[in-house]
Amino acid sequence: MVRRNSERRAALVDAAIEVLAKEGARGLTFRAVDVEAGVPTGTASNYFASRDALLTQAGARVYERFQPDEALIARQRAATPDKETYTTLMREVVGRVSAFRTGYLALLELRLEATRRPELRVVLTERVRADVDANVAYHEQSGLPGDATAVRLLYLALNWLIVEQLTLPDVFSEAERDQLVAAAVERIVIL
Amino acid sequence: MVRRNSERRAALVDAAIEVLAKEGARGLTFRAVDVEAGVPTGTASNYFASRDALLTQAGARVYERFQPDEALIARQRAATPDKETYTTLMREVVGRVSAFRTGYLALLELRLEATRRPELRVVLTERVRADVDANVAYHEQSGLPGDATAVRLLYLALNWLIVEQLTLPDVFSEAERDQLVAAAVERIVIL
Repeated sequence: MVRRNSERRAALVDAAIEVLAKEGARGLTFRAVDVEAGVPTGTASNYFASRDALLTQAGARVYERFQPDEALIARQRAATPDKETYTTLMREVVGRVSAFRTGYLALLELRLEATRRPELRVVLTERVRADVDANVAYHEQSGLPGDATAVRLLYLALNWLIVEQLTLPDVFSEAERDQLVAAAVERIVIL
Repeated sequence: MVRRNSERRAALVDAAIEVLAKEGARGLTFRAVDVEAGVPTGTASNYFASRDALLTQAGARVYERFQPDEALIARQRAATPDKETYTTLMREVVGRVSAFRTGYLALLELRLEATRRPELRVVLTERVRADVDANVAYHEQSGLPGDATAVRLLYLALNWLIVEQLTLPDVFSEAERDQLVAAAVERIVIL
């Protein structure tokens, strides 16, 4: 029963992500989540104390789903830690994050909603800061070239590249985006 | 009469920007714009053929209001075209764009709305591409160091820095943001 409950909760959080991406933050109601998840009306409101709780858990879940799988991490650890590997890693990150299109769009909706909801802002700020810190820590133990400033600058540039790709995909062509990732690593990562 | 009409139209478009930032794209109705502008109900629907027309004009108006004034352009043209001037210019851009907070947030709302409205996507794509091209052209005739790739990479990195500042301002401190702008120019602009 506990297991079934936690599965249903996860399904509701995943449904909330889809609603956020499709309908925007203002479209996120318990009712819309019930419909998206295909469960009886009233289910979501039984699982979450408030709309804010659901928003927060949706944000956390997106970050969880962005994580690379074990095989990918192992492959990255085995590669020679040079700039070429760094570029490959960055291309994988951009590819993985933008492949979960609705997740990234949901995060943008949550950021905009955070400008209106101070409590959500606090939770998201912690989550994003933890993400940036984790990137810096991963880099440190990876042996890859460059410093923490490079990690932060790449975080900035690649996030907007993903925004561009997911919201206005024709501003840059795929080849241009690919070149921009390579140029970003080439210039920002100082040996 | 024509003049009064165009003033009122501009006031309605500016009101639409505020509504977008405050209420999100889904909150943008003719009614909400009338309330925000303090005009009688029905006014906005007299001035704009559709909600899409209003969205499009709001986007164009934000870009217009982002433009630097003549005095600033003259000052920039008179400065020695070196990396230090480049850094000052980038800080001015970040400062000017983030100072029009509601305008930038409205553009993010429009980008997300564009994922749902193909026509809006076409118009915004053209506008953003024109903006990137204008940056490249401005750089070319400025005599500033670096190439078009640097202009594009700075565009990416600084846009996300502004997103960070406007949506989750405590992820980076003001000093950290300032350092990131300087480091971005230092590394990305290759002499």
